[in-house]
Order: sequence, then C-alpha cells, then structure tokens
Amino acid sequence: MFGPVLCRLPGGIKTRILRPVARIFTSSSRMAKSKFEYVRNFETDDTCLKNCYIVVRLDGRNFHKFAEQHNFLKPNDDRALGLMTCSARSVMEDLDDIIISYGQSDEFSFVFKRTSNWFKRRASKLMTHVASQFSSSYVFYWKDYFGDQPLLYPPGFDGRVVLYPSNRNLRDYLSWRQADCHVNNLYNTVFWTLVQKGGLTTTQAEDRLKGTLASDKNEIMFSEFDINYNKEPLVHRKGTTLIWEKLEETVTKSVKLPNEAGEEVLVTRTRRRVSAHHCDVIGNQFWEEHPNILEDDNC
Amino acid sequence: MFGPVLCRLPGGIKTRILRPVARIFTSSSRMAKSKFEYVRNFETDDTCLKNCYIVVRLDGRNFHKFAEQHNFLKPNDDRALGLMTCSARSVMEDLDDIIISYGQSDEFSFVFKRTSNWFKRRASKLMTHVASQFSSSYVFYWKDYFGDQPLLYPPGFDGRVVLYPSNRNLRDYLSWRQADCHVNNLYNTVFWTLVQKGGLTTTQAEDRLKGTLASDKNEIMFSEFDINYNKEPLVHRKGTTLIWEKLEETVTKSVKLPNEAGEEVLVTRTRRRVSAHHCDVIGNQFWEEHPNILEDDNC
Amino acid sequence: MFGPVLCRLPGGIKTRILRPVARIFTSSSRMAKSKFEYVRNFETDDTCLKNCYIVVRLDGRNFHKFAEQHNFLKPNDDRALGLMTCSARSVMEDLDDIIISYGQSDEFSFVFKRTSNWFKRRASKLMTHVASQFSSSYVFYWKDYFGDQPLLYPPGFDGRVVLYPSNRNLRDYLSWRQADCHVNNLYNTVFWTLVQKGGLTTTQAEDRLKGTLASDKNEIMFSEFDINYNKEPLVHRKGTTLIWEKLEETVTKSVKLPNEAGEEVLVTRTRRRVSAHHCDVIGNQFWEEHPNILEDDNC
Amino acid sequence: MFGPVLCRLPGGIKTRILRPVARIFTSSSRMAKSKFEYVRNFETDDTCLKNCYIVVRLDGRNFHKFAEQHNFLKPNDDRALGLMTCSARSVMEDLDDIIISYGQSDEFSFVFKRTSNWFKRRASKLMTHVASQFSSSYVFYWKDYFGDQPLLYPPGFDGRVVLYPSNRNLRDYLSWRQADCHVNNLYNTVFWTLVQKGGLTTTQAEDRLKGTLASDKNEIMFSEFDINYNKEPLVHRKGTTLIWEKLEETVTKSVKLPNEAGEEVLVTRTRRRVSAHHCDVIGNQFWEEHPNILEDDNC
Repeated sequence: MFGPVLCRLPGGIKTRILRPVARIFTSSSRMAKSKFEYVRNFETDDTCLKNCYIVVRLDGRNFHKFAEQHNFLKPNDDRALGLMTCSARSVMEDLDDIIISYGQSDEFSFVFKRTSNWFKRRASKLMTHVASQFSSSYVFYWKDYFGDQPLLYPPGFDGRVVLYPSNRNLRDYLSWRQADCHVNNLYNTVFWTLVQKGGLTTTQAEDRLKGTLASDKNEIMFSEFDINYNKEPLVHRKGTTLIWEKLEETVTKSVKLPNEAGEEVLVTRTRRRVSAHHCDVIGNQFWEEHPNILEDDNC
Repeated sequence: MFGPVLCRLPGGIKTRILRPVARIFTSSSRMAKSKFEYVRNFETDDTCLKNCYIVVRLDGRNFHKFAEQHNFLKPNDDRALGLMTCSARSVMEDLDDIIISYGQSDEFSFVFKRTSNWFKRRASKLMTHVASQFSSSYVFYWKDYFGDQPLLYPPGFDGRVVLYPSNRNLRDYLSWRQADCHVNNLYNTVFWTLVQKGGLTTTQAEDRLKGTLASDKNEIMFSEFDINYNKEPLVHRKGTTLIWEKLEETVTKSVKLPNEAGEEVLVTRTRRRVSAHHCDVIGNQFWEEHPNILEDDNC
Repeated sequence: MFGPVLCRLPGGIKTRILRPVARIFTSSSRMAKSKFEYVRNFETDDTCLKNCYIVVRLDGRNFHKFAEQHNFLKPNDDRALGLMTCSARSVMEDLDDIIISYGQSDEFSFVFKRTSNWFKRRASKLMTHVASQFSSSYVFYWKDYFGDQPLLYPPGFDGRVVLYPSNRNLRDYLSWRQADCHVNNLYNTVFWTLVQKGGLTTTQAEDRLKGTLASDKNEIMFSEFDINYNKEPLVHRKGTTLIWEKLEETVTKSVKLPNEAGEEVLVTRTRRRVSAHHCDVIGNQFWEEHPNILEDDNC
Repeated sequence: MFGPVLCRLPGGIKTRILRPVARIFTSSSRMAKSKFEYVRNFETDDTCLKNCYIVVRLDGRNFHKFAEQHNFLKPNDDRALGLMTCSARSVMEDLDDIIISYGQSDEFSFVFKRTSNWFKRRASKLMTHVASQFSSSYVFYWKDYFGDQPLLYPPGFDGRVVLYPSNRNLRDYLSWRQADCHVNNLYNTVFWTLVQKGGLTTTQAEDRLKGTLASDKNEIMFSEFDINYNKEPLVHRKGTTLIWEKLEETVTKSVKLPNEAGEEVLVTRTRRRVSAHHCDVIGNQFWEEHPNILEDDNC
C-alpha cells in the first residue's frame, strides 16, 4: 500500500511515490498491464473554458430529512449554518484560487478566479475535490457545533460546475443566490412565526400566506407579532459571504547578530485569512469596498 | 432555512419544499429575481452517453502525507483498507445502480450499470455525490477502524468519470486497476521486507530493487526471508471487490386472520446486501460465478 | 499565400508547408505572435468516446423552398435523390473509415467504424468535413443530374454527431431512419396521388388523409388508383444504403522478364468500391449478407 | 420526398412539413418507429457557453495540392483570394449574427456575436452550417473568379468552434490570425521573388532565407529587387476583414393619396451590407472607427 518514500529522511524533497512505476517486471504482468492500459484513453477532457469564473455549487442531499432527524431549529438553526460556514472555510483554506464563496440554507457556492489554473481547470477534479473536502469537514467539525448531539449518519452533498465569462455575470449569479436567500427566509420566518407564536397549524399557516406579497408578510409580522423583519439577524437574511482578507500583524522579534547584544525589533507581516460577511452583495457597496475580489473584464 | 414541509402530518406525501417558490412577492424582489435568474442558463448539460458503463474513480488527495501523519502500517494497513471498504459500502448502499466497485490502496472505483438513469446520468451529479458520500463516510466511520487514535484533519478525495461502451472495456478497466494493485503490492511488500526484516535503509532497498523483475522479487522474499508472496493476504494482493448478493432469508411469522386462531408460518424473503471479495477479477471465473453483474452487450 | 513546397522537384517527399513556421523574425512580430498565441488554448477537446460508432447526419437547410424553386417532382424527384447519393458517395470515397451510409429525402447519415481514429476522433473535424465535402459535391455534380437546369444558389446542409456504443444501437439508428423514410413516403405517395390523379386540392387531400392508418392509405391507392404501394420503386420506399464492396478484377498483363520473351499473364486484383442498395436494413437479412460491416461488440 | 406544404396557397402561413408526422399509422410501423426512436436520446447537448463570442474557423483541406492542380499564382492568387472572400460573404449574408469575419490564405474565421442565440448556440449546427454554406458557395462562384478554367473536383474545408469570453480575447484572436498572415506573406513574397526574379531554385531560396529576420527579408527585397514590401497590396499583407456596414439610401418614390394628385417624395432607407477591408485589425484604430462590432464586456 505504501512505497519507499514514507521514510525519506527529513529534509529530503518529498514526492509521493505511493504507486511506484515498477518499470521492469515479469513479462506476464507487464503484458497484462499494457494490454489493459488502453482503457485510460476513454477518459475525456473536461477542461473549463479559460478566462471565465468557475463556480462550484454544493447542495445538501435530502437535507429536509436530515434536518428533521437532527432536530434543526426552524426557521434557522445557527448551529447548522455555522457548520456549513466552517466547512466552506475549510474548503477555501485547503484549495487554491477560491476568491469568494457564498452560502445559505444547505447550499454553498465557491468561485475560482477566472485565471485559475488549479487542477488544470479540469471540471471533474474541481467539483469532486470541493464536494469531498466540504463533506469530510462537515462530519469532522460536527461536534464543534452540535456538541454531544450525535451525527446519525454521514450526510451527502452534490455539486455542479458553472462558468461565468464576465464580472457582471458572476455578480448576477451571487445576486441570484442572495435574492433566493431573501425570498425563502422571509417566507420561512413568517411561516414559523405564525406556527410557533400564532398557534396556527402548518396547513393554516400555508393557507394564510398563499398569494401574499413581501409587503404583506412584513405587515403580518409587524402588526401581529411586533417583529420588524429588517431587524432579523443578517446571517439569516443575507446568508454568508466568505472572502480572503489581508491582515497586518506586528510582532516583536528578538534579533541577535553575531558579536552583538540581542535586541528586540518590531516586524510587520501580512497574513491572509478567510473572513465572513453577512451583508448585501447585490448592490455596489460590497464590491467597492473589496475591489480586489474580481479581476478586470478586459483581460 | 426550512419551509413548511417539515411538519407535514404523517401519512401525507412528503415532497421537499425546502425553498418554496414564493411566486408572489413584492415587485422589487420579483424583478430582482427574474433579472438575475438568467444565470441559470450558463449551466451546461453533461449527460453521460447512454448504454455505457459509468465509472467513478476516487483517489485520496495527499494520502502519502495523510498515511504518515496517521501512522499507517507499511506496506499495508488493514485498518485503513477496512475504512476504505466500509466507506465504499456506504456509497453503494446509498446510491442506486452501482453494480460493482473495486478498491485498492487509496483509490476506489464505482461502476454504474449501463442502463442506469440515476441523476439523469448527469456526470457532475454522479461524481460529486460519490465523492461526497465517500468522504463523509470516511470521517464518520474512522473510529470504527482506528478506535481512539484521532483523525487529525478532514481528508480529501478527488474523482473523475469515465465511460465504457462494452463489457470487454469494463472488464479491462477493472483488470487494469487490479494489475496495478498487484505490481504495487509486490514492490511494496519486498521493499518493506528488506527494510523491516533485512535491516536495509530505504535507499538501500530502493537500489536493491532497481531493475528487478517480478520473479526476482519473489525469489528475494522466498530465499532470503522464507516468504511465499503467493501466500500473502488476498486483500493485499487482489484488492477488494464489492458486489450485490442476494440472500434468501427464512423467518417465522405469526399470522392471524380475522375470526381465526393465529398460526405460525415460514416466510422466505430475498434481501440483497453488499458482499466483499478479494479474488482475481482479471480471469473469467469471477464473472462466470456472478453472471448477473454485467448486462448483455447486445442491448 | 503559398510557400516553397509548391515547386518541389518530382520525387521529393511533399509535405505541406503552406504556412512556414518562420521561427526567426523581427522581435516585434515575434512578440506580437507569441503575445496573441495564448488564444489557442481556448479550444476545447471534443474527442468522441472510443469504441463507439460515430454517426454524422446531414440535413438540407430550407430544402422545402429549395425543392420548390428548383421544380423538384413530387412526391419524389429521382434527379435530386441521385444527386444526394452521388454526393454521399463522394464523401465516402474521400474520407476514411466510413463503413456505411444511409440516405432518404434531404438527409444522409454517415457511420464511421467504432475503432476509427480518423481526425483523432475529433467531433468538430469529422462533422465539418463531411458537411463541407457533401455540400461542395452537391454543387459540383448538380449538372450531372439536372443537366441544363441551373442551380439558383448554393444550398446548405447542417450536421450533427451522435455516438452509438453497440451494434444493436447502431442498427436501431438505421432502422429509425428507414422507418421514417417509409412513413413519410407512404404519406407523400398517397397525398400526391390524390392531388395529381384524383384531382383533389392539397387541402382536400390533407383532410382525406387525416387519421388514416397505413392500411387505409394502401387501400386508397389500390382501390381508387389501382396502385400497389409495395410495387413502388424501392429507392423511394427504402431509401439508399451505401456500403463498400470488394471486387475481384482479372486483367491481362504482359510481363517481360530480362532475357526472355514477353508473355501474357492473368492478374487478379481486389478493389473496393462503394455500392448502393435499396433494401430493407431493419431485418437481419441485409446484415447477414454483409457480415463485415459491423465490428464485434465484444471489443 | 416532399409533403403537402409544397403547394400551400399564397398567403397561407408556410411551415415546412417535409416529413409530416403521420401520427396515425399501422400498429406495426408505429411500433417500429417508437421502438427505434430511443436512439434520439444518444445525442448530446453541445450548447456554447452564453455571453462568449463564438468563432468558427474553416481551413482548406489539402489546399496545397488543390492550389497546384489549379495553377494558383504564387505567392498570392487574387482569383483564389477573391473566391474565398466571396464565399465568406455568402456565409455572412445567409447566416444571422455573424458580426465580423477574417480571412487569409485558405482559411476564414467567422465571429458570432456574444449574445447570439442562433441555432440555440449549438456548436455542431453552427460549424456544420458555416462549413456547408462556404463549401457550396466556393463551387457555385468558382466560375466568377476562374472563368473557363474548370474546377477539377469538389474541395473540402474543415472547421472548429472556439469561444472567447472577453473583447480582449476576441481581438487577440483576430490579431493572432493577422500576425500569422503577415509572417507567412512576408516569407512567401521574398521566397517567390528570389525564385521568380532572382533566378534561384526553390532550394536555394529556402537556404537563403534560413535564419533571416523580418528586417533581413525587407532588406533583400529592397536592395536586390527594388521592392518596398510595405507597398505590396494590403489584401496580401493584411488579409480580408468583412463587417456589416449601414448604407443610407435616398430614393424617389411616387406617392398618391386618395383624392389627391400623386407627388414624388424622397425616401431615405437604411440598408446593411457586407463590406470588405484590408487594414490592420491589431491596433485600436479599426475598432475605434467601428465601435458597434463588439458588445460591451460588462454584459
């Protein structure tokens, strides 16, 4: 299972030779191998078109049932949302070239920069790795968000790849997801308020909301339950946007040159880390405040 | 986050309406939504050609380092192999239409039947779901194989999809992976025998094996260490093949018709379950013993 | 426009150097070229899956209008059908690896053998070359079928590529096209008989045929016009199938060895040529009579 | 071959029903048809990514040989270039949404606007139709450029589709082709000058040019043959660019209102037609003079 590299001496350049290409072996196994190896050529190339943003979106599989079985609070469970964001952060820190990601409910979208050449832009590699890293992180970090409540079975997410050629298209994609977040959260908030505080059955709540406009829903909450929807938590109304931010760190370092007394110096380092935002990404403000996320269209 | 369906009364037809399509809302949000929704049309169709076997292969990412950090035994760690197989079994039980899967080292291949219409044969859905379910299972079942030894970080797997039009092509694909298993395991077994029992450094072992044929390697093990390679565990030499097997189960059931005294009857039920094999899949015997795995080419 | 190769001396190996790679030129043009050359990488790979039959089907564009403007006879114009077949023959003789082609009305399908590696199986190259060669042939050979009647404008054909993994799929594809030929020709034959011989207007003929079964149509022709549809020309009822056939040719050759008197010898040569058939390809007989068209599924 | 629509009365809505869907026919043929029709589902979707320029490039097949057999003049044959341009013009006039095309030697590139929805952006339809229309036009218009010199056989062109997401990418594509034109034409012009005026054999001319820079080639022509390369015809040095141009046409029309004497009025109409340019398209000037060819990147 594991080849010689495992115990390379420290300091040596480590390259993975898990499956050493044993070039010389018995004619029977060599023949066998070369006889079968033609099957490699059935793989097809799925390279993403260059100079386009690559979006990988994940969606929870059967998360309605999963949420029910794990007693997720309604209309929003902050533990579940926190775990989604934590898993997304793990993906961003693990994979190169993701410049922004956006999540809401049981979905998360990851945007690779348009000039990315990660995995040679092979769609299958990009999306499976995102799906895999997200899923293993979800289970790995479960206890950090749900404590002793056990995870009953391993959850699944499926994914897709979509390409966007222009900044406008990409921003519209993110706007589409955030508008979706808004519409669903408004509905769900009123619905569960009617049920949990208003004492309606779910069927009654459904009927009550049939045909209502957003303004009607706001009005129901305000006049009947004294709730101002616009003061509901931003994370529920706007979802979660993850971006890279640069931090300037000033640390004290003790320096000692030969033949000199040591001295303390201040060293400023730039680190980047993933930061979470729960703000509007449809308007221009967010993009003006973070001008480095998008690359120029004219490239 | 969660819509009205969550508390549908038992017995009702449950359909997931996690994100209710609130068709009527304020004109501004409606306009916003319809204005952005055009981005959906940037998705491209990646339906797999019909009447071909669909193979999804997963490979561990940086598993050399992962194995080292988790003290995997060399040349084979049965806990790690068991966890791979357990995760693959979880995938097979969770996804429809996988007829056979084959794994060795840190890779696993899943074969969907040629007439499968699962996920409408969309390549992206198939491979991300396999990658996701495998990865979350790997973390979920870790403790069943490694006990108290902690998992240090969430591991990643990447995947790909390959289509095979004929039974011959599919068998050759599986033969290719099993030939690969053989070549690597023979090399690794001799290598680690030279190091662990022969006292060679890894560099010396590498040099010793340079240019040797399979017969030479067998000879080294036999004459110097009294090891007959062909008696090494099959799971290491042949990898693991998972297939569905039918079980006839006879259970006693007490039956009571109205106005009659109850009586005990024997009921025979057929269940199917995933069974693991560590045998040769290159020759004909395995396929003759399991004639129902492959569908007829002439379809 | 044309480089040095044009006047290579006879006997020299001719390779096309229409666009010589002038490796050394001024830095400005070299920079310009390399600066722009990145655009090549936007081409995507469209290699056809191996071990599948590659079918290219062409369809006439706006051929209803084209037929009207060129006074094609109804329901079938043998000159137009002959020209289609002639153009298809030109494609087969010009391109390698087409094993069978089938045409009817204004469409023609070309089948490349499943092991073909022509144009590296690149779909775009295969279909554009077929479309181009067919179209230029159609204009080139027009006068051979329409004599002095002028071609009024250059006609267009569009094409597509479809892959078929098994012999059964390929035969069903050809059967589908031939069933289509049958249905259309039966309808058109009755329709035009009602108009041309029965004196109905086209609207009356359409009404008359609404809801009729094939047996009704046969009956109309037989009882009212004394026409047995099954004796209509095969080319109209079955379309045209083109295949390669081997011919044994025996020619007399005069041979003269040094120091000997010349003598006449019989030499047998095998040539292959495209032959046209107007028979049923849905049943087994055609395929049994030509067992070499299809390759074995088990490859 | 042709259905009832052929003689629809004037004024009727004409839709092509060349192959009427005879919904009701004998059960045997209906079964046959539905039994085979599944093969349609083997077609795969090849829709081009939205908001990208779609470029179809055609290249002559074996045009070195074709040029030789048809006695094309060297280094440039204006009849052949004219025929290429004429065929490209035919393509532009016949197909919607081509905004610019560029040709040189035996190649021509056609650019569809980024918002085009022609043929639903299906790559196969776009490229085969361009290839077909170009090829049939080439034969159709041959005599307009070559007069009595016969076309010996139908020529072939192959094509490909490439997508470009930004204006910069598209301009770089066209610059790439024009830089290619420049490099080849400079080489060929010097080469044939050395042969035709300098009396060198082609081998000698090849040797003479080996390793020369553009400046060297200019110098050879200027000092030895008194030719200023920069005064060579633009069509050879820059290739041919076709775009749509708007023409204002003022025509006199006689108008007669009821109960009034007729009078003559001037009517201005806007027509668009394809115009040919032989200018630099690498720099900005051309694009500034024709600002409507490209659409805004920010869409």
